[in-house]
Amino acid sequence: MKYSEYFIPTQKDTPSEAEIISHKLMIRAGMIKQSSAGIYSWLPLGLRVLKKIENIVREEQDKAGAIELLMPTIQSADLWIKSGRYKDYGKEMLRIKDRSGREMLYGPTNEELITDIFQSHISSYKDLPKNLFHIQWKFRDEVRPRFGVMRGREFLMKDNYSFDLDEDSAKISYNNMFSAYIKTFLRMGLTPISLRAETGPIGGNLSHEFQILASTGESTLYYDKELETLNPNTIDPEKLQSFYAAVDDQHDEKNCPIEKENIKISKGIEVGHIFYFGIKYSEKLNAYVQNKDGKNLPVHMGSYGIGISRLVGAIIEAYHDDKGIKWPLSVAPFTLSIINLMPEDKNCSDTAESFYNKFLEQEIDVILDDRICSIGKKLSDNELIGVPIQLIIGKRDLNEGVVELKNRLNNSSKKISLDSAINNILSETKI
Amino acid sequence: MKYSEYFIPTQKDTPSEAEIISHKLMIRAGMIKQSSAGIYSWLPLGLRVLKKIENIVREEQDKAGAIELLMPTIQSADLWIKSGRYKDYGKEMLRIKDRSGREMLYGPTNEELITDIFQSHISSYKDLPKNLFHIQWKFRDEVRPRFGVMRGREFLMKDNYSFDLDEDSAKISYNNMFSAYIKTFLRMGLTPISLRAETGPIGGNLSHEFQILASTGESTLYYDKELETLNPNTIDPEKLQSFYAAVDDQHDEKNCPIEKENIKISKGIEVGHIFYFGIKYSEKLNAYVQNKDGKNLPVHMGSYGIGISRLVGAIIEAYHDDKGIKWPLSVAPFTLSIINLMPEDKNCSDTAESFYNKFLEQEIDVILDDRICSIGKKLSDNELIGVPIQLIIGKRDLNEGVVELKNRLNNSSKKISLDSAINNILSETKI
Repeated sequence: MKYSEYFIPTQKDTPSEAEIISHKLMIRAGMIKQSSAGIYSWLPLGLRVLKKIENIVREEQDKAGAIELLMPTIQSADLWIKSGRYKDYGKEMLRIKDRSGREMLYGPTNEELITDIFQSHISSYKDLPKNLFHIQWKFRDEVRPRFGVMRGREFLMKDNYSFDLDEDSAKISYNNMFSAYIKTFLRMGLTPISLRAETGPIGGNLSHEFQILASTGESTLYYDKELETLNPNTIDPEKLQSFYAAVDDQHDEKNCPIEKENIKISKGIEVGHIFYFGIKYSEKLNAYVQNKDGKNLPVHMGSYGIGISRLVGAIIEAYHDDKGIKWPLSVAPFTLSIINLMPEDKNCSDTAESFYNKFLEQEIDVILDDRICSIGKKLSDNELIGVPIQLIIGKRDLNEGVVELKNRLNNSSKKISLDSAINNILSETKI
Repeated sequence: MKYSEYFIPTQKDTPSEAEIISHKLMIRAGMIKQSSAGIYSWLPLGLRVLKKIENIVREEQDKAGAIELLMPTIQSADLWIKSGRYKDYGKEMLRIKDRSGREMLYGPTNEELITDIFQSHISSYKDLPKNLFHIQWKFRDEVRPRFGVMRGREFLMKDNYSFDLDEDSAKISYNNMFSAYIKTFLRMGLTPISLRAETGPIGGNLSHEFQILASTGESTLYYDKELETLNPNTIDPEKLQSFYAAVDDQHDEKNCPIEKENIKISKGIEVGHIFYFGIKYSEKLNAYVQNKDGKNLPVHMGSYGIGISRLVGAIIEAYHDDKGIKWPLSVAPFTLSIINLMPEDKNCSDTAESFYNKFLEQEIDVILDDRICSIGKKLSDNELIGVPIQLIIGKRDLNEGVVELKNRLNNSSKKISLDSAINNILSETKI
C-alpha cells in the first residue's frame, strides 16, 4: 500500500469529545469517524486492525473445535418473548417495528436465536457436544455511549454457544473456551487476568470475565502474580481458575487467601466474558436431546463473548505513549512502514520502491510512505499510527550506505547497512 | 473438517415456502435457516460460500485500487433528510427511534454516509481520485420478501463510491469499476452480461446493470453472442459497452442494430449495478474540493454495488441439476470431499484419514465424510451439497488398489489407482 494513495486522515488536534486515550488516538490516527452517538465508521486503518483481531479470534475458535455460522442482526421479538427476556432487557434493546407492524429488534446477544437453530436440527446425544459461534455486529442502546469503540452502541462481538448432554460435559466445553480465550488474548500481546464473575441477566451459576492489563484501564485488579506468567502451550484452565484475582470492590485484604507479597495490583479492561447457564434457555425454547436410553433432556448450554471492536481500544490503552499508538506485531495495521524522507530524490525513491517491492514479495504487510510533505509530519504520523517496524530512508544515510531501522514498541533505532536491511527486518517481523 | 463433527443439517423434503430452485436447494443443503420473513441465518456451509464470494469481490476491488473501510449498519436520519432521500425511500427503509427518540435507520445504501466521510477529510484535487468501498449488511424492508437470499430483507452488499474532480475523470473511474465487475463474475464461473440501465432513485444519467446467465433466471436477455466469450485479461469496458444487450421488454426485433444470427437469448439474474450520478449528493452534502486554480467544485461521484448474499443464490441458479448444487471451484464450500463409504472398516478409514491429512497439508479445502450412515445417504448428501471433486473410498475398490474420483460439475467418474490419486486431484483443484 502506498500512503499517498491510501486514506489515513490523521489529525493534530485532540477531539474534545474524547475522554480516554484510546478514543483520542483512534480519532487522531484516522482510524474511526463517529457517525452518530456511539456509532462509528471504521476508516481503512481502523478496519485493518479490527480484521486482524477478528482473525485471531476466529483462528483460536477454529482450533478449539467451534463451528462458525452467521446469524442476522435483525431478529423477530417472538423468541425473546418466549425466553422472557423481551421485557427484561429494557431500553438497552433497540426495538423496531417493520413495515407490517411486526415487533423486531437489533440483536444485543444471540442465546435465543442459536437455541432455536439448535433445536430445529439437533435432537440426539450422538451429535453432541456442539459449539457454534459467529462474529456479527450487535447493538446495545446505551444511555451514555462513550469512550469511543470501548462503549459504543453498534459493536462487533464474537459470541459462541456450547451444547452438551449434561453438566459434566458442559464444564469441559466451558474449560475448553476458557483456554481458548487465554490463548486468544496472549496472541494479541495482552496479559489476560481471569476473574470469577457474576452471571447477571444471562443467568446461570458459573461465569468468568477476562480483563487485560492496561495502565489506563477502568478497573483495579488484585491478583496472584503467577497469572502474569502464562505460557500459551501449557494452559490449564482448572489451575488458572484456582488462582486469586479480584476487582477492588471485591478484594478484602484481611481475608485474602494468598500472601501479600504474591499479590499484584494493576489496572484492567474487560474484554471477554463466559457463562455456563445450564438449561435456562433450552427448557424455555424447547431444545431437548435424546440420551442413550431414549430419554429427552434439555440441553446444557454455555455462552462466550469477546468484544472485538472493544479490543481495538483496549489494545491501544495497553500500548501507547505520548507520541501515539504502539501496535503489537500480531494486530498492527501494517507490520512495516518504509518511510521515504525525500520522495523528490531519485536515489531515495528508487531505494524505497525497491525495498517496498521486496517486502511485498515476502508477503509482509508493508506501507510505503511516499507522501510529499515535511519530514517532521512524516515521522510523527508514523509514530502516531504506530507501525511497529519503521525503515527510514534519508538522503544523507544513503550516501553512507545505511538506512535507519526503528522499533516503535521500544522506540529504539539503529543504523544498518543497506545489504543487511532485508534480513534484519524479516527477523523482526516474525510473530 | 470432519463431516461427523461439523454441522450440515441436510433435509430430504423440499420446503413448501420455497418457490425457486436456489432457495429449495439452500434449505435442503443445510446452508441457511430462515429466522423471520426475508431474514436468514447462514449455517456453516452457507457461510463458507458467502465468504468465498466476499473474498473474490474484495480481491478484485483491491486490484482495481479501491480502498476498504466499514460503515455502520445503523445511521442517523440527519444526512438522509439533507439529501432529500429520507422521504423518497418510503416504507422500504427500516426506520428506528432510539431510546432518546432520535430518528435512525438501517442503511439500505450508503451514498449519504460516505459523502459525509469524504467531505470531512478530503478537500483538495491532490487527493483525487479516491474510490472507497465497504462490505456490510444492508436492510430493505421489501413488501414481499421471497426467493430466499435472492430477495431477502437483510442482505450483504459490497458498495463503493468513486470521487473525481470532473466528469472525464469520473468516467475513467466508472470504466475501471465496470472492468472489475466483469472480472469478479468471471472468477466465480459466471457469464456476466452488461446492460445499459435506468438510474432510478440513485440518480444520474449513466448506469449499467450486470446480469449473469442462468437457465432458471428471472429476466430474458437478448444480447450479442460476442458477450459470452470474454477474456478476463483483455477486458475493454468501452468496447463491451458498445455491444448490444437488452432485457425482453426493451428489445425491439425490427430496430435491433445487429443481425439476428448474432443475437443470443438467455435467462439472466441481476447481480450488480453501477451508477455515475455526478454532483447530486456532493452539492447537497457539501462535498467540495479545490482544483488547481484554488476554485471549490462539488466532487463527481459514482456508486457501484454487488449483491454478495444474492450471488450465493444466483450461482446455484446457474449451477445445479436434479441431484443438487454443482459449485464452481472458486466458490465451493469445500473443494474436495473424501467420502469414506465404510467408516467401520479399518482399511477404508486408514486410507481416508491418510488422504485427508495429505490434502490438509496441501491447504486444500477438504471435508472428510466419516459419518456412520447408509452409502446411499452419503452419496446423495455429497451430491446435494455439491462439492466439486469427490474422492470415494470403498472396500471392494481398495482391494483392487483403486479409488473413485468423481467430478460433480459434469457428473463424470473414473477409477484411479491409489498411487495416482493425489496428483490427479491436485491437478483438478487448480482454480
